[in-house]
Amino acid sequence: MSKQLPIAKCCSPLARDPLTEVQATELAKRFKAMADPVRLRLLSLIASHTGGEACVCDLTDAFDLTGPTISHHLKVLRESGLITGERRGTWVYYRVHPEALAHLSAVLAPGDAVVA
Amino acid sequence: MSKQLPIAKCCSPLARDPLTEVQATELAKRFKAMADPVRLRLLSLIASHTGGEACVCDLTDAFDLTGPTISHHLKVLRESGLITGERRGTWVYYRVHPEALAHLSAVLAPGDAVVA
Repeated sequence: MSKQLPIAKCCSPLARDPLTEVQATELAKRFKAMADPVRLRLLSLIASHTGGEACVCDLTDAFDLTGPTISHHLKVLRESGLITGERRGTWVYYRVHPEALAHLSAVLAPGDAVVA
Repeated sequence: MSKQLPIAKCCSPLARDPLTEVQATELAKRFKAMADPVRLRLLSLIASHTGGEACVCDLTDAFDLTGPTISHHLKVLRESGLITGERRGTWVYYRVHPEALAHLSAVLAPGDAVVA
């Protein structure tokens, strides 16, 4: 997990205060991880799955892709800090990192929005 | 403007309903436009500028980049539907498309969020 991006604790909506270079660089990495339709669908399938958790066995049927390709996309999402993975028995179970998504949602909110 | 992406009117939070392939493809294009630190800072500088509007003359000083490079990034943001540009006299004035940002913010919001 050492390669995983830390979750930013901050950031006003970008419509309120200009982003610093450091903030923009961190955010751009996360948006890059989401700049792919397969990864967005994986993120959505995990986040909307019963209990907010899904294993690869729940995900592969939705795609006409090989297991290694799905695993690669999951790795990109994990390394960007958008999802976490936990091995239990045969499978790795994935969850969306709720703070990561909420943070991105807040950054893109209108400038007069309240950020927790 | 014919190359500009249309603004999606829809989308539940991706944590509530799995994205369709079509939705994911559209969203991925927009996240790709934001997957660059310079473009994110431009977006933020425009959105947070007085009156919500900025011309290139307001933007270039913040970057150690040439005018054509800034123009290229502004073109990518415009074609993705994130900003609009209007020529008045010497300059093109840019505004963030408020619906586009609000839509992305809503898609990334927690699954129990209310989407307008």
